[in-house]
Formats: sequence, structure tokens, C-alpha cells
Amino acid sequence: MKYLHTMVRVTDIDESLDFYCNKLGLEELDRYVNEGGRFTLVFLAAPGNESAQVELTWNWDPEELSGGRNFGHLAYEVDDIYAKCRHLMDSGVTINRPPRDGRMAFVRSPDGVSVELLQRGEALPPADPWKDMGNTGVW
Amino acid sequence: MKYLHTMVRVTDIDESLDFYCNKLGLEELDRYVNEGGRFTLVFLAAPGNESAQVELTWNWDPEELSGGRNFGHLAYEVDDIYAKCRHLMDSGVTINRPPRDGRMAFVRSPDGVSVELLQRGEALPPADPWKDMGNTGVW
Repeated sequence: MKYLHTMVRVTDIDESLDFYCNKLGLEELDRYVNEGGRFTLVFLAAPGNESAQVELTWNWDPEELSGGRNFGHLAYEVDDIYAKCRHLMDSGVTINRPPRDGRMAFVRSPDGVSVELLQRGEALPPADPWKDMGNTGVW
Repeated sequence: MKYLHTMVRVTDIDESLDFYCNKLGLEELDRYVNEGGRFTLVFLAAPGNESAQVELTWNWDPEELSGGRNFGHLAYEVDDIYAKCRHLMDSGVTINRPPRDGRMAFVRSPDGVSVELLQRGEALPPADPWKDMGNTGVW
């Protein structure tokens, strides 16, 4: 038995790929377009960690993608949580829970999927601008 | 960058561990009990696949755990999808999408989290009772 992926639905595939790949840092591994079923599946993973994937499901016909409470978040370990959050923030992503502790941050995808970022190994020393940055919204 | 886990919230930790471990086949790797915060975290993974985990968050104070549409499902590859579904069904789990094709099935956790099961490698030949079994609900 082996974990394959977590599937999340997206309303705008371009906006979502921009978030998950350009901003968060995942890579596209595979794509399946079903013209008859009017949906596209895109499989993403962290570089070098292809066995644990995120599947984006984009149904071409518009639908409301509400959030729920039973699902919490996707979590990724990152090499430098400050550099990652800086890149995300400079790309226009709100850092809902800044890494004040040098260890943990939360952001959200364009469809409201919460993503946790955790510093690999020991927490980094407190640093500006993160150490005094307040929370924004919920995650 | 590396995938760590998908977090899902649960309302009843015993019922959830029964589902995810005894029925689905994951193993408990770690547990963190926070008396002050009144929550318990339990980390699970498929045997031999400890690097890709599911984190169960159990908040001790009751809360409504609605489902949403932005999250889709967790997916696991299994060695024998018929044996896995038989074990789940015999344990009282509804097979929402039976493996009629010998390849894919869906079930739901006690809190409504959809779980996809995919046969490793080639699809199995069609077999009773699965090949004629209808769907139940949504997944």
C-alpha cells in the first residue's frame, strides 16, 4: 500500500498552476485532458519527491468550490522558510500565518486550500520582517 | 522541498483510527497530545511508506466538520483492490464506488473524507461481487 496523491479541485487551472508551481515551487509531472468529460487533471510534486503528488482537477464547467472543515491542509517541508515566504509574498500571495518562529507558515491556494510550510530541521533564528508580522485571516 | 502530509480533522479519534488503520490499513507513526490546547494529532502512513503521511487532528471540543468541494480525496495504491474492498466491506465500510473495473474504488472516512483506492499495476479481471455492484452515494 502506498500513498499516491491528494486531489484538490480548482476553478482556474492557469491561476492554480501559477500558485502551485511558480509561487509554491511544485513541478508539473503529468497532465490528462478529457475533452468528452470536459475536465483536466494535472499531477504536481515537489522537485525530487515525485512519489507524493497533488492532483489538480479542473472541471471546465464552472462550479462553486466551497471549503470544508474535514480537510485541513497540505504540508511541505522547505529548505529555507524565509526565502520561500519572501518569494510567495513578492509574488502576491498573502502569508496568512507568517513564520514568526522561523519554523511554520501557512498560505492558501486560489481556491482556499490551506498549505503549511515547515522549515527542514531546526527552526531558523527570528528575523525581520517575519518576527513581528501579524496573522491575516484564517488558514 | 518535500511533501510531508495531508491534514484532516476528525470528530472521534477512536472511530477514525479504526477506519484509517484497522480497515484501510494505515499505521500510526506518532501521536502528540496537547492538554492545554485540548487537541491530539496522530500521524499515519501506509506500511513502508512512512514519508507520505496523513495527519489526523482531533479537537477535543465538539465541532461540526462539514465537507467542501475544493478538497477532493486522498489516493492510495493497493496490492489487491478486491481484497482491500472485501476487508473494508466486511468491516462495515460502504464501498461508494465499487471496483467494477478491477482498478478503482472510493470509500469515505467517518468524517466524510473521500479515499480513492487504485490497483497497483494492471487492472484485475472483472470479478464478483464487484463487477455488477452499483454506486452508493457520492465520493
